[in-house]
Amino acid sequence: MTSAAVPEPATPRRRGRPGYDQATILRTAVDLFNRRGYDATSMGDLARELGLTKAAIYHHVDGKEQLLSAALDDALDELTAAVTEATQPTSDLSAYERLRSVVRRSVEVLMAHQSSVTLLLRVRGNSEVELAALQRRRWLDDQLAELVAQAAREGSLRADIPPRLVSRLLFGMVNSLVEWYHADGTYDPGTVADAVTDLAFDGLRAR
Amino acid sequence: MTSAAVPEPATPRRRGRPGYDQATILRTAVDLFNRRGYDATSMGDLARELGLTKAAIYHHVDGKEQLLSAALDDALDELTAAVTEATQPTSDLSAYERLRSVVRRSVEVLMAHQSSVTLLLRVRGNSEVELAALQRRRWLDDQLAELVAQAAREGSLRADIPPRLVSRLLFGMVNSLVEWYHADGTYDPGTVADAVTDLAFDGLRAR
Repeated sequence: MTSAAVPEPATPRRRGRPGYDQATILRTAVDLFNRRGYDATSMGDLARELGLTKAAIYHHVDGKEQLLSAALDDALDELTAAVTEATQPTSDLSAYERLRSVVRRSVEVLMAHQSSVTLLLRVRGNSEVELAALQRRRWLDDQLAELVAQAAREGSLRADIPPRLVSRLLFGMVNSLVEWYHADGTYDPGTVADAVTDLAFDGLRAR
Repeated sequence: MTSAAVPEPATPRRRGRPGYDQATILRTAVDLFNRRGYDATSMGDLARELGLTKAAIYHHVDGKEQLLSAALDDALDELTAAVTEATQPTSDLSAYERLRSVVRRSVEVLMAHQSSVTLLLRVRGNSEVELAALQRRRWLDDQLAELVAQAAREGSLRADIPPRLVSRLLFGMVNSLVEWYHADGTYDPGTVADAVTDLAFDGLRAR
């Protein structure tokens, strides 16, 4: 019966390919935003990249800003969890140990969520979504600077560099990973996390 | 006599304002490139920003790419001078001392030439000019990684982190300054240069 049926027109309306879900669309969108810039990327560009119609994408997501928001939340939720754990006053660990551990954990988060952290670090506050993300980043920065100050008061961290400056440099080094780290096996994540922590806390000078 | 002269028409053809020279145009162009992105900035945008006609700008410069090239050279020439001095084999200083000194000098160059270094760090290789700049950056990276390796062989630098990774993290921290440093007096350049060098070589742990 099938072979006898009238064939479909040779050039049917382009349809959403099967197998595309929200996660795939988000991942592709974030890579495209990072490559071309969020503002310069349209939903049409994303549709072309995925080989989908715009209508098919809108079946899964509300629009470009929802994709941005989801990506920024992905990065911020992980970083917030790490920082919240490190700043629990109930912890048995010293501030120094908690600072060292949150630096290491941040490196791991960055490597595991590199695309969304890259996007987060490029946000400049051009919309409500971006402003909200910047506000969450500032909260993280404040918490980390306070943890640095605690570790210095405790006597375990050098106190001759202003805490906010220490925090900037420490997380500046962590964040710089987005510029060159590739999950291609050149460096495994554990090696990089150890290197950052050892360099920052113990220094490069041979002992 | 002057007061009696026939006045000029009230709306003359817009002319180049006096006092604009190539250096002012370059400085404004680099700030605009950093704010909007090089690709998204037109010579018309630059003209509007300067309050000049495009013709007036073309009187001073050949075009957008010449401005990019001049800015990248500004950053690269300074960094190259610092690295070349540090890697002179004739120097009396140890590799460790020369590495420590080139890190400090790089921080100073970055703060003194922040706009052009920012532009350099965002170059992705979209044109001949950008590819040439990336090639010069790679040369700098290679020289610095080799200096790190020398200092480790000398026994004065820890040898348990791969030299290329040390170099990435060290200059990742230096380069991250472009994201937050403001020459507004919050931190004077000497404090920042000392902080980076002390953190990197001596570490944050209190001794």
